[in-house]
Amino acid sequence: MCQLLALNCNSPTHVGFSFTGFAQRGGRTDEHRDGWGIAFFEGGHDKGLRHFVDVQPACESPMAQFVRNYPIRSRNVIAHIRKATLGAVALENCHPFVRELWGRYWVFAHNGTLLDFKPKLHAGFQPVGSTDSELAFCWIMQELAKSHAGMPRIDELSLTLRELAARLAERGTFNFLLGNGLALWAHASTQLHYVERSHPFAHAQLRDEDLSIDFSQHNQPGDKIAVVVTAPLTTNENWQAFAPHTLKVFVDGQAI
Amino acid sequence: MCQLLALNCNSPTHVGFSFTGFAQRGGRTDEHRDGWGIAFFEGGHDKGLRHFVDVQPACESPMAQFVRNYPIRSRNVIAHIRKATLGAVALENCHPFVRELWGRYWVFAHNGTLLDFKPKLHAGFQPVGSTDSELAFCWIMQELAKSHAGMPRIDELSLTLRELAARLAERGTFNFLLGNGLALWAHASTQLHYVERSHPFAHAQLRDEDLSIDFSQHNQPGDKIAVVVTAPLTTNENWQAFAPHTLKVFVDGQAI
Repeated sequence: MCQLLALNCNSPTHVGFSFTGFAQRGGRTDEHRDGWGIAFFEGGHDKGLRHFVDVQPACESPMAQFVRNYPIRSRNVIAHIRKATLGAVALENCHPFVRELWGRYWVFAHNGTLLDFKPKLHAGFQPVGSTDSELAFCWIMQELAKSHAGMPRIDELSLTLRELAARLAERGTFNFLLGNGLALWAHASTQLHYVERSHPFAHAQLRDEDLSIDFSQHNQPGDKIAVVVTAPLTTNENWQAFAPHTLKVFVDGQAI
Repeated sequence: MCQLLALNCNSPTHVGFSFTGFAQRGGRTDEHRDGWGIAFFEGGHDKGLRHFVDVQPACESPMAQFVRNYPIRSRNVIAHIRKATLGAVALENCHPFVRELWGRYWVFAHNGTLLDFKPKLHAGFQPVGSTDSELAFCWIMQELAKSHAGMPRIDELSLTLRELAARLAERGTFNFLLGNGLALWAHASTQLHYVERSHPFAHAQLRDEDLSIDFSQHNQPGDKIAVVVTAPLTTNENWQAFAPHTLKVFVDGQAI
């Protein structure tokens, strides 16, 4: 299995604190040693993308260390640490995966395992690696492309994704994160948590590292930040568990 | 305009020396300050991809510094430093661009400007940014997908690409690099150079930085490395200029 992390914010935010705690689970406080990855939307209209993947454990990877300290600020981030189930430990099997659709990059990460999932992929989106996760992502992209002629509104996309997620969840555990720079879709079939941070910002203590932060020192009163993660990252915030088989949509730092 | 760099090798090679010289042209020894990017194929069957883009000048970017020193070894690398002509300075306009086709990532970088290039893109590949370069790449991917039902042999791909490159070169300057992990295609409409390094390996001196290297200390006798670049990187190697309007294909470190 794997672990998931996403940030969705109304203004560009540095992911360092959350990613620092999360990366410890990639080999130090938890067993997800088989690679990691992170993608940041940036640039004009949040259309540009930085994408880092690595087969080293996140807790040891010099690239993870670099990413933690580099002042990348983004309104939409998706990260993943991997414990291989289906698919070898290899760079092409590291999440998150990226594809382009309707002139935007789409980023996907998955926690869980799908069994006997052999969808018909007729063209357009083919997996590069050998994971069930990338296969599911390609199928989702294909079905989105079939369902809408061009980029639909976020609520229309959510309707389609809710249907697709339900079909995939019949095949196994399917917790996933999907983002396109405009919104974050998070689906729990078994385990996913989120917190919404806003004014008044409080003090938070990481669960996986002896590190705390006073968010009031790093944020403006109008900032809104939603964090979605497999298991709560901090010990003293109001993390909410997703009910099983729910899809939530986050825009501008809030669940909508 | 921009500058291009690619390595194609028969065994995984560290790009540090060549990229160090090249990155100096991103703001220090030349004027290409509007971002940079580099992509490395890695992993099983050279299918995985590391992709770095940044809007800072390559000569100053901490990420470029990190990439130079990180021991990434790859058989296929494509890099680019940008001087913006069409398209704003923004992350989504940094080359190289990446798309997936037939279950492989394809990487593209362009030097030049295409005028009045407005191809019909019916689906499948749409530009995310606003450069003529990404538009040309999407058109190439679309035409490849239309010309071949699945991944063809390299010589068949080269035939198709030669035709497509000729059509694009009618619209302006179209020097480009295209790679899929199996081969590197390099097209010159005006300016491109290459060198093939093999046993006996010699000593080389960078043109843009006071740095030299003894390749015999870093390579095995059977190693073959082809380097393609806009302008020669070293002062004492046998760089060959591409004839105008030629497409060359490199596999396992050699032009074929």
